[in-house]
Amino acid sequence: MNLNLSRKSKTPLYLQVYRSLKQKILKNDLKENTRLPAVRTLADENSLNPSTVVKAYEKLKEEKLIYKKVGSGSYVSSAKNIKIHEDYDDYVNDKIDSTQMNVKNNINFASATPSHDLFPIEDFKNAINHVLDRDGGKAFDYQNTQGYISLRKHISDFLITKNMNSSYKDIQIVSGAQQAIDIISKIFINEGDNIAIETPSYSGALASFKERKAKIHSFNITKNGIDLDELENFLQKDKINFLYCMPNFQNPTGMIMDLESKKRLIDMSVNYDFFIVEDDCISELNYFNEDVVSLKSLDKNNKVIYIKSYSKIFMPGLRLGYMVFPKSLSTKIISTKYSSDISTSGLNQRAFDLYLKNGDYDKHINKINDLFKKRFLHTKKLIEKYSKYFEMVFIPKGGVYFWLKLKNHNFDNFIYKCRINGVSLLPEKYFNTENKNLNNTFRISFSDTSLEQITNGFEIMKNILDDDFTEENIQPIV
Amino acid sequence: MNLNLSRKSKTPLYLQVYRSLKQKILKNDLKENTRLPAVRTLADENSLNPSTVVKAYEKLKEEKLIYKKVGSGSYVSSAKNIKIHEDYDDYVNDKIDSTQMNVKNNINFASATPSHDLFPIEDFKNAINHVLDRDGGKAFDYQNTQGYISLRKHISDFLITKNMNSSYKDIQIVSGAQQAIDIISKIFINEGDNIAIETPSYSGALASFKERKAKIHSFNITKNGIDLDELENFLQKDKINFLYCMPNFQNPTGMIMDLESKKRLIDMSVNYDFFIVEDDCISELNYFNEDVVSLKSLDKNNKVIYIKSYSKIFMPGLRLGYMVFPKSLSTKIISTKYSSDISTSGLNQRAFDLYLKNGDYDKHINKINDLFKKRFLHTKKLIEKYSKYFEMVFIPKGGVYFWLKLKNHNFDNFIYKCRINGVSLLPEKYFNTENKNLNNTFRISFSDTSLEQITNGFEIMKNILDDDFTEENIQPIV
Repeated sequence: MNLNLSRKSKTPLYLQVYRSLKQKILKNDLKENTRLPAVRTLADENSLNPSTVVKAYEKLKEEKLIYKKVGSGSYVSSAKNIKIHEDYDDYVNDKIDSTQMNVKNNINFASATPSHDLFPIEDFKNAINHVLDRDGGKAFDYQNTQGYISLRKHISDFLITKNMNSSYKDIQIVSGAQQAIDIISKIFINEGDNIAIETPSYSGALASFKERKAKIHSFNITKNGIDLDELENFLQKDKINFLYCMPNFQNPTGMIMDLESKKRLIDMSVNYDFFIVEDDCISELNYFNEDVVSLKSLDKNNKVIYIKSYSKIFMPGLRLGYMVFPKSLSTKIISTKYSSDISTSGLNQRAFDLYLKNGDYDKHINKINDLFKKRFLHTKKLIEKYSKYFEMVFIPKGGVYFWLKLKNHNFDNFIYKCRINGVSLLPEKYFNTENKNLNNTFRISFSDTSLEQITNGFEIMKNILDDDFTEENIQPIV
Repeated sequence: MNLNLSRKSKTPLYLQVYRSLKQKILKNDLKENTRLPAVRTLADENSLNPSTVVKAYEKLKEEKLIYKKVGSGSYVSSAKNIKIHEDYDDYVNDKIDSTQMNVKNNINFASATPSHDLFPIEDFKNAINHVLDRDGGKAFDYQNTQGYISLRKHISDFLITKNMNSSYKDIQIVSGAQQAIDIISKIFINEGDNIAIETPSYSGALASFKERKAKIHSFNITKNGIDLDELENFLQKDKINFLYCMPNFQNPTGMIMDLESKKRLIDMSVNYDFFIVEDDCISELNYFNEDVVSLKSLDKNNKVIYIKSYSKIFMPGLRLGYMVFPKSLSTKIISTKYSSDISTSGLNQRAFDLYLKNGDYDKHINKINDLFKKRFLHTKKLIEKYSKYFEMVFIPKGGVYFWLKLKNHNFDNFIYKCRINGVSLLPEKYFNTENKNLNNTFRISFSDTSLEQITNGFEIMKNILDDDFTEENIQPIV
């Protein structure tokens, strides 16, 4: 077995051996229950000291990629023991650097941001060049910490059409919604403070809350959004600093809170004195005229902080979003933004401002909406077709994802097989808030998949699951 | 007296009255010790309820802008009681939004970033357009959280020429150096933890450390950089998590640590087990071939985190910088960057990468260096010329600022008069780390001033100080 080792590399040889074997296992070149070469054989074939091979095998065994049988040697573990995405960062880095990803046969049900062929590059390029000609160096000077005033005014005008009567002074431009979450965490969380969140929920928010060492309490999503009875039971005993929630097309379930629940939540925020952090990343993708009224528009008591992301409906790499805050928080928010990164890129703010002003943004959203509605309906039909395998835990009302439950099959095995067969999914653990058992659920998103890819993806999943029974039967007991 | 009130505005009338009068006082239209109109007179002249005027006068009095004499009415306070920059944010927002600032006669000794006519807009515009044509939507997709790989590789190649042999895997791209400081604060500071810092130092760093509730210990700058004896005395009794310092052309003193001190500091970081956070914002502006060796290049024990800012030498609004970290910190830094803002703007990273590759950056730095050396020498000559008024506390070896001490004059009065006469300075309080008395010192920066403006600025300051004696003499005791 040739391991392609490099004597010139700074990487120790045992690590090279380990990596080379790991790759073969993950690529399925070394299939489960295959016997690995004896230590001495592999050492001789690659001119290695046997102890180097022993060290590599030990590392593989530690990671449960191989197992030992006494007197018989080492074998490749069964697929379900092989964990793939070790952590979110790896996953993100992996997905993100698309120049380096092997996209052959890849069906990306994992990403909730549009494929970049949907980005309006030409229009945005025009906006950028217009800004550079108009503003010159000003576009690259420090910007106002709160955000470019003209952009804030445009946003304020837009918000009025959504019954959010906030002045541009109540708007903070951020370098993406994640930064808004980070700013809120800094302001509202000290170690051990109680906050509340939905289950399942967005992992990036969770990461930020955990970093501040919050005590995170999670409440289930129901068909009307977060379970308000559960929440109220808790609030009768305990205080929270804020609730983080996505009332419209929640990530990952696609659920929407009904108006009555929204009003009740607003009342609760007053009665139990907490802030509501309303994350709106996708309310534009409203295919069936749902009433996507925001909590902010119902808020008469300055209890709602509204966060707007453009990553899922426009271009994530622009790193632009905003928050609308109660006046009393103004100084805290601006100074926390200042100490976070001083201000957001001027060129991006100014170009986006112009793009909004030209009406190009509205055109873009209409286009995306039409396209994604087709994908939504197509995906829904396929889930229904394959109802033998999948349960639609909630029936989403808009947005770009479905939250599915795998029926009657080994979950880890399914996720792993999807991965090695080129279908990326996000299993429950990426949305898990308190290590609750989410019962073999996962998110399927269609932002980055064509209708054809959606069809193919479901067929691959079906084939995996049909094979699954057979494979489970032949698994040895070790 | 006409107050230009608007009945249509949402701003309450008493606030309008207050603002109008405040403006007249700050503009010196209402000079010190002038008697204000009687309440009823002003009310009649502007068709106001007298209680509105009373409320406005009270607010002015609270802010010590006016004072009352019993039985005689209200008077404008003496100038030295009138505080101008209430806080840094106000200042920053003020300076930053240059479209709205009254720049007539303004001499900006406050800013340490270049005026935007020095930004290489045409070259950078070409780089942006090249990137958009080459990469299309990829430029607006999420980027690798650690940073665009090609940019990190270029930086790594550059670092090797500075004896910093760090791989691109040890580099984290950040949205400006402030974000690097924020990331470090998040990782290394829990409430009450000890950290060390120079006095005077950069206020943005201080804001971030305070936000994390660090116990900040500050050590004086000497002619060889931070006072290592003082620091070592402290370390013999107490532990610090890190020292934040600027060893080359320190902000605001312009001082440089000599090589021997740098080596001693590195040894101390090992012996007393702490990290050194080395902030390098300006080592390129080296007019006299000083040995600007970085602490990172001397670091054999993985104790130095190096932060590079481009704001003072290139374009601050680009919001780009990087940090070089010891391998052991890799996971923490990348995941903290992730939860801060996921990734830095792809377009800016890619355009800057191309700009570096084209060699345009080196050309730009050479140009800036030549220009700033002239300003440096010119400013130094003027300080020497006006040595009756100013003491050069340190003789800087490079960079863009001088740290001056005002001799024999009322400091607050001087700062205030500079402001109203169109000369912006940054007084000690913006660099103060523990409310230490910095003895009437201030920073003068020439990044944003022509040679002619520098000359004019010093003349204005001289005139202010020559008048000063007279004015002090006529100040009434109230």
